Amino acid sequence: MEATETTLVVPSKKECRHWYVEWQENDSAHYHGVERQIFHGESPYQVIDIYQTKKFGKLLVLDGDPQSSEHDEDIYHEALVHPALVTHPNPRAILILGGGEGATLREALRHPQIEKIVMVDIDATVVDVCKKELPAYSNGAYDNPKVRLLIDDANKYLKETNEKFDCVISDLTEPFPESPTHGLLTKEFFTLVKSRMSADGVLAMQASHAGRGMNRLYLHHLQTLKGIWKTIRPYRAFIPAFYSEWGYILASDAHDPLVSTWQKIDEKLKPFASQLRYYDGRIHHAIFTPPKELRPLL
Amino acid sequence: MEATETTLVVPSKKECRHWYVEWQENDSAHYHGVERQIFHGESPYQVIDIYQTKKFGKLLVLDGDPQSSEHDEDIYHEALVHPALVTHPNPRAILILGGGEGATLREALRHPQIEKIVMVDIDATVVDVCKKELPAYSNGAYDNPKVRLLIDDANKYLKETNEKFDCVISDLTEPFPESPTHGLLTKEFFTLVKSRMSADGVLAMQASHAGRGMNRLYLHHLQTLKGIWKTIRPYRAFIPAFYSEWGYILASDAHDPLVSTWQKIDEKLKPFASQLRYYDGRIHHAIFTPPKELRPLL
Amino acid sequence: MEATETTLVVPSKKECRHWYVEWQENDSAHYHGVERQIFHGESPYQVIDIYQTKKFGKLLVLDGDPQSSEHDEDIYHEALVHPALVTHPNPRAILILGGGEGATLREALRHPQIEKIVMVDIDATVVDVCKKELPAYSNGAYDNPKVRLLIDDANKYLKETNEKFDCVISDLTEPFPESPTHGLLTKEFFTLVKSRMSADGVLAMQASHAGRGMNRLYLHHLQTLKGIWKTIRPYRAFIPAFYSEWGYILASDAHDPLVSTWQKIDEKLKPFASQLRYYDGRIHHAIFTPPKELRPLL
Amino acid sequence: MEATETTLVVPSKKECRHWYVEWQENDSAHYHGVERQIFHGESPYQVIDIYQTKKFGKLLVLDGDPQSSEHDEDIYHEALVHPALVTHPNPRAILILGGGEGATLREALRHPQIEKIVMVDIDATVVDVCKKELPAYSNGAYDNPKVRLLIDDANKYLKETNEKFDCVISDLTEPFPESPTHGLLTKEFFTLVKSRMSADGVLAMQASHAGRGMNRLYLHHLQTLKGIWKTIRPYRAFIPAFYSEWGYILASDAHDPLVSTWQKIDEKLKPFASQLRYYDGRIHHAIFTPPKELRPLL
Repeated sequence: MEATETTLVVPSKKECRHWYVEWQENDSAHYHGVERQIFHGESPYQVIDIYQTKKFGKLLVLDGDPQSSEHDEDIYHEALVHPALVTHPNPRAILILGGGEGATLREALRHPQIEKIVMVDIDATVVDVCKKELPAYSNGAYDNPKVRLLIDDANKYLKETNEKFDCVISDLTEPFPESPTHGLLTKEFFTLVKSRMSADGVLAMQASHAGRGMNRLYLHHLQTLKGIWKTIRPYRAFIPAFYSEWGYILASDAHDPLVSTWQKIDEKLKPFASQLRYYDGRIHHAIFTPPKELRPLL
Repeated sequence: MEATETTLVVPSKKECRHWYVEWQENDSAHYHGVERQIFHGESPYQVIDIYQTKKFGKLLVLDGDPQSSEHDEDIYHEALVHPALVTHPNPRAILILGGGEGATLREALRHPQIEKIVMVDIDATVVDVCKKELPAYSNGAYDNPKVRLLIDDANKYLKETNEKFDCVISDLTEPFPESPTHGLLTKEFFTLVKSRMSADGVLAMQASHAGRGMNRLYLHHLQTLKGIWKTIRPYRAFIPAFYSEWGYILASDAHDPLVSTWQKIDEKLKPFASQLRYYDGRIHHAIFTPPKELRPLL
Repeated sequence: MEATETTLVVPSKKECRHWYVEWQENDSAHYHGVERQIFHGESPYQVIDIYQTKKFGKLLVLDGDPQSSEHDEDIYHEALVHPALVTHPNPRAILILGGGEGATLREALRHPQIEKIVMVDIDATVVDVCKKELPAYSNGAYDNPKVRLLIDDANKYLKETNEKFDCVISDLTEPFPESPTHGLLTKEFFTLVKSRMSADGVLAMQASHAGRGMNRLYLHHLQTLKGIWKTIRPYRAFIPAFYSEWGYILASDAHDPLVSTWQKIDEKLKPFASQLRYYDGRIHHAIFTPPKELRPLL
Repeated sequence: MEATETTLVVPSKKECRHWYVEWQENDSAHYHGVERQIFHGESPYQVIDIYQTKKFGKLLVLDGDPQSSEHDEDIYHEALVHPALVTHPNPRAILILGGGEGATLREALRHPQIEKIVMVDIDATVVDVCKKELPAYSNGAYDNPKVRLLIDDANKYLKETNEKFDCVISDLTEPFPESPTHGLLTKEFFTLVKSRMSADGVLAMQASHAGRGMNRLYLHHLQTLKGIWKTIRPYRAFIPAFYSEWGYILASDAHDPLVSTWQKIDEKLKPFASQLRYYDGRIHHAIFTPPKELRPLL
């Protein structure tokens, strides 16, 4: 009974009370401390959240899965876009599938020789919300006259179009059961993608977690692309906000990202190298080095 | 490598990704699943959050501590207000300290014989936010001509006023180190409170967690009031959203809540009994039954 | 780059790293800080864990659900056992269903007029583990010559026995899908229980969470017992380690726990009142006071 | 009231109830689902825990920080040991500081030309617990006649010895306030280390988190080594169980890990390459590729 106010044990204000949780599996989760929730809404396709996290700035979350953070979206998007665009010798027409955040588009537009970019995303709400709440992501890219944004189903667009592209960048979400991409990323789909590409076209796709023991979906995507293109190159980049080594795949019949020297890649990047925070020729070769566990597949 | 999309183990959408955490101590915490954050702001006095929780509806949180939920704020506020107002034989003038949510005021106004209620809360932002986001809490009470709302420091008001009250309801937040109430709830303060009450006045105060092993602050408050009033009666109500048996104290020199029968209490409540979801004469006697661990104090 | 060791922000040792989580629902969970895990094993019937928690001492957990803690098992077990034994005028033969911890038995043995207690628990491992790791729970009760422990299925025992009992204490676990009690707690089962009781027998059962909004299973159990016994009395006790107002039900054709005065109950408890930490005649009447939301059922 | 057992919403057994939490900072944490706790104890120097995690097998934790998991300790230890041993042209005498798990020793012993290894760890309990509970870590290495294990303070040993080493591997824990290494990893300490090395000696040290935005301690260690050795090479490896790109530093006055080709490295590894799960010549060059944010330091 001799307790005084000052001796009362109370929880410290340091303890974070507001969390966004990424469940990587049922028995593994990452807890992100949240300053406040900036946006919560539901489109016809998915639940959209933006959190102001304490560690990674604004974090975009679709259907509960983190998509990118202010803090390190450059790593994710530079690694997605530039390897394909420097591997193709002269990319002029680009197709982006998904990519509603606008940052994939922003990165592609850095390459001055590009003449047109078609971006097909099914969800207008994601595009609008990101334009408003994450303006640095698209950074005005939608206003560029080279860009044509189509709010449409990727599969439907590909079936109906007769356009041809030098590079295709697939920035579609994980094909989880409830996702709009569920059932989409099949051999049939990528065969259709290939039919809309020039003969020496280069595909790059984001392909989920790729660290050892977390790479089931990554292996699945690698298996899907095998047999469609001659050269299949897995590569990976560590994304702090995902707490994971993220997987990408580059595929082509004509070009191989392992051939060019880092000096030649840096030469290509020269006009905008100072705008890149993550990628250059040396990083290119580091991230394309396959880990031992993936080599039997290649 | 034979994984197919359908066999991929992915986290179920059932898993909640957005949480508000109440740290009861450093080694004990309750996780509230959140639908979305409705409000986040900071007044000069405290951080104010309102979460749409999955289980308790809207939950008001000040400086990280839960204050009340749509789902069960009636339990908290009915237990805070009515025992004092039925214990005093004829309460006409009421003072509410704190209570920015407006629900303490709403409950007090049910008693038809009341002629005036002065409510003193330091934080105009809390009052405004609750009026806007939790309108059912005050339910128009601020517009009642019997009510005078003062945005002021409780201590300052008490020192300056020469008004006298029959009942005082203390709905101040926990005196945690960072709280506007830190250092306030002392013997000096309650002596000052008493000096503004009629000789037969009745005080009721909310007094923190009171379950066995969680009652340090409750015991402290009981000790503070002892010696100031002759009759000190602890009582407790289980609040689901707090996951805790919540403590209150009633104090008076003239009246004892244990004396009246439950039938007489129900008689007093008759004009508005149907509006009460929690409290009546039988509950009154149940909640005033002191647990064994508190009896040595009484 | 001018960081020094002392300015490095590192997690404080205060932060608890080892947790047992009680999922109350998918969107609500209580996190118990753990000092160490004392036992982990699996019997043919359930997974058994004992944690040394920071707040509640040793905590027994079956199939992930908390059963009782050193800190407050007295509340749970006193509330389960004594109301029935003081409501029956002269209980001599007692049947305990479940109760493998041994504490239900310990409480029943306090009543000196009891002549025999049969305890039927399906899981010998729980009994053995609790004897070894939680010896204060049974406190030697199994060695009392009045006690007969049967490791058996409650349903099977009841069908085969021709013994009759004055009081039955049902301390069976929640009938969750994976529990050994799943599908057990039906009208048929309790009719069978009643057939093994004397005409004026009294049943008490533990009946899950009972706080407002958490009482689905409790209402279900109340509904199950209605029609089998004439008098059905719900009662509740707040258990700190469950963070919940816990539900119990007393049922009888002949006796009503509301009839006796608290003074008469205290008279009955006199021989061992000093050994009870929670229960007495006044607590009896407090816990039997039904909340408004349950009254329409009664 | 029409609830039936089958419609009752209950938490799924899928939900994990037992967690080890790595607090990366106060507002970021990784939750590891735990099968059971295998060991909990306290030595004079630190608290030692081993958890059987659901995802990473056995996980060794010292003072709350994860040290290594069965699932991927090979990545951590191969990356710590082999770069230094292949960079030095002919390492014969090796000193390991810390490394109580025994796996650093195991990796060093793979190099056939090594003649002696002195391992200095302050905590005999860690060594003993790991031998018993994680036998695959040391895999008999302590019985190798080339090995001398000293239970001693690293600083004290270095001051007193007159032995000289070709390579030093620092596998000391993070210098957090409560750690036995707190205050140890200073310029004075590493100057002392260097004084016990041959003129062309190579140091490798584990150096904490190194991902962008998590690399404060890593930058600190880089700064500490600068000025002591001429060549300072940061390198990094993603460790799944740490959910982090882990930092290491190689330092030498005479040798540079960037000089040798991957083919020459693979030649050196040939006698035991099939025993390595992670490291080879190509991985060597990938992990030594500095990220853009570290280049200004180099």
